[in-house]
Amino acid sequence: MSRTRVHNLSISLDGFATGEPQSAEAPFGHAGERLHQWMFATRFWAEGGTAGIDDAFAVRHSDGIGAEIMGANKFGPPGWPDDPDWKGWWGPNPPFHTPTFVLTHHPRPPIEMDGGTTFHFLDATPDEALATAAEAAGGRDVRIGGGATVVRDFVTAGLVDHLHLVQVPIVLGRGVRVWDGLEGLEETYAVEAVSSPSGVTHLTFDKRAS
Amino acid sequence: MSRTRVHNLSISLDGFATGEPQSAEAPFGHAGERLHQWMFATRFWAEGGTAGIDDAFAVRHSDGIGAEIMGANKFGPPGWPDDPDWKGWWGPNPPFHTPTFVLTHHPRPPIEMDGGTTFHFLDATPDEALATAAEAAGGRDVRIGGGATVVRDFVTAGLVDHLHLVQVPIVLGRGVRVWDGLEGLEETYAVEAVSSPSGVTHLTFDKRAS
Ligand SMILES: NC(=O)c1ccc[n+]([C@@H]2O[C@H](COP(=O)([O-])OP(=O)(O)OC[C@H]3O[C@@H](n4cnc5c(N)ncnc54)[C@H](OP(=O)(O)O)[C@@H]3O)[C@@H](O)[C@H]2O)c1
Ligand SMILES: NC(=O)c1ccc[n+]([C@@H]2O[C@H](COP(=O)([O-])OP(=O)(O)OC[C@H]3O[C@@H](n4cnc5c(N)ncnc54)[C@H](OP(=O)(O)O)[C@@H]3O)[C@@H](O)[C@H]2O)c1
Repeated sequence: MSRTRVHNLSISLDGFATGEPQSAEAPFGHAGERLHQWMFATRFWAEGGTAGIDDAFAVRHSDGIGAEIMGANKFGPPGWPDDPDWKGWWGPNPPFHTPTFVLTHHPRPPIEMDGGTTFHFLDATPDEALATAAEAAGGRDVRIGGGATVVRDFVTAGLVDHLHLVQVPIVLGRGVRVWDGLEGLEETYAVEAVSSPSGVTHLTFDKRAS
Repeated sequence: MSRTRVHNLSISLDGFATGEPQSAEAPFGHAGERLHQWMFATRFWAEGGTAGIDDAFAVRHSDGIGAEIMGANKFGPPGWPDDPDWKGWWGPNPPFHTPTFVLTHHPRPPIEMDGGTTFHFLDATPDEALATAAEAAGGRDVRIGGGATVVRDFVTAGLVDHLHLVQVPIVLGRGVRVWDGLEGLEETYAVEAVSSPSGVTHLTFDKRAS
């Protein structure tokens, strides 16, 4: 059975997966790159990086994944639907390498990129989007790529099997919080926490057999 | 120099140090006792308990402490100022064993308890309250005992040297959040995180030399 997974979603101590305001100059707002520095330091990100616990978690991002679903605000800054040439932040060869479904109320035709990534634009419920992505994944797993809004929506809809958050030791104070609406998450998921020498803490949530 | 310390303040993954509503029957609201089970399991709490990392942190609660400051909502449930006989939750011999200052807009005369605890009631700013408590502590340290509102106020006023939070793997969704107003805490504190086999993660914040 195809599983639905979230990986490497980086949050502040107070639970924000992005700062604010999001813009073309600052995709993560006042958070800057601070939420992701732990990942930039790993071998997953760049040759010569660390190969310890942070890397062990980071590499799972691509393992057995056949499609990604992301939110409109991950795909581009506010206003991107007005720019017919916008193709995402990631240049000609985005790091997804699979069909990638962008949830948006402003859908447009698919965009084929280098390296196996094709962006498809969907105005659909989480259930419908997952059915479409799972079909495209051809039996492999589907990654919910973020941001926090989309992750929350899929968790709330009961669609996520594995959730990996990385808590970074900063307090952002504002942004989009991943926890809102997730009261009682521990009832449906087994939770583990493990802190890394780098200073971050990896939190994993695995759906309990029901 | 007398230092100001917070110990064993237990929070949910989403940062709540209590659930809601607080009442005489449920001092922590819908959180029940879930925020403190890690502590009940330690030798600090009861003979025969664990003596690992959770205990190592827990025992610091009393080490070198000469006074405590707590908030009105830790001292009693809503409405306690209307009950002239209310003497706190803790019975005749409260676990403070020092002068203990309750911040309240409804002060009353001091109450002497067994075991060295005397409750004093103060309507004062954090600075004034700390000066009074430090005087009573006679050179020993002052503990800020909670709840989250009072801890936040003392941290924001720049008065806290050491802050120990214990993150429990539950999502409460509502209550009083410790993080609100603490944006950028990592700039003035060195932060460490260490997860325990019990499932909780200990976070320590130590004021940087300025
Ligand atoms: N910390 C991390 O690891 C991480 C990971 C990924 C992203 N991010 C960051 O997080 C931010 C984005 O997160 P976010 O929470 O603001 O937004 P998001 O989850 O990326 O996108 C939310 C938006 O997607 C569209 N959408 C969501 N569900 C939909 C549905 N069912 N049907 C149609 N449209 C739907 C809506 O946009 P419209 O109504 O405008 O179409 C909605 O406002 C960015 O800054 C990004 O860089 C961080
Ligand atoms: N998770 C933990 O480890 C932990 C630790 C301790 C307590 N708790 C729980 O946390 C809850 C209480 O926390 P809380 O955040 O709601 O409240 P709190 O911090 O205990 O008390 C806040 C109240 O104290 C009074 N106060 C604060 N500063 C004052 C000042 N400068 N001058 C005069 N009065 C002042 C005000 O009450 P009035 O205006 O009504 O006088 C204010 O509403 C309780 O459920 C308690 O059991 C949890």
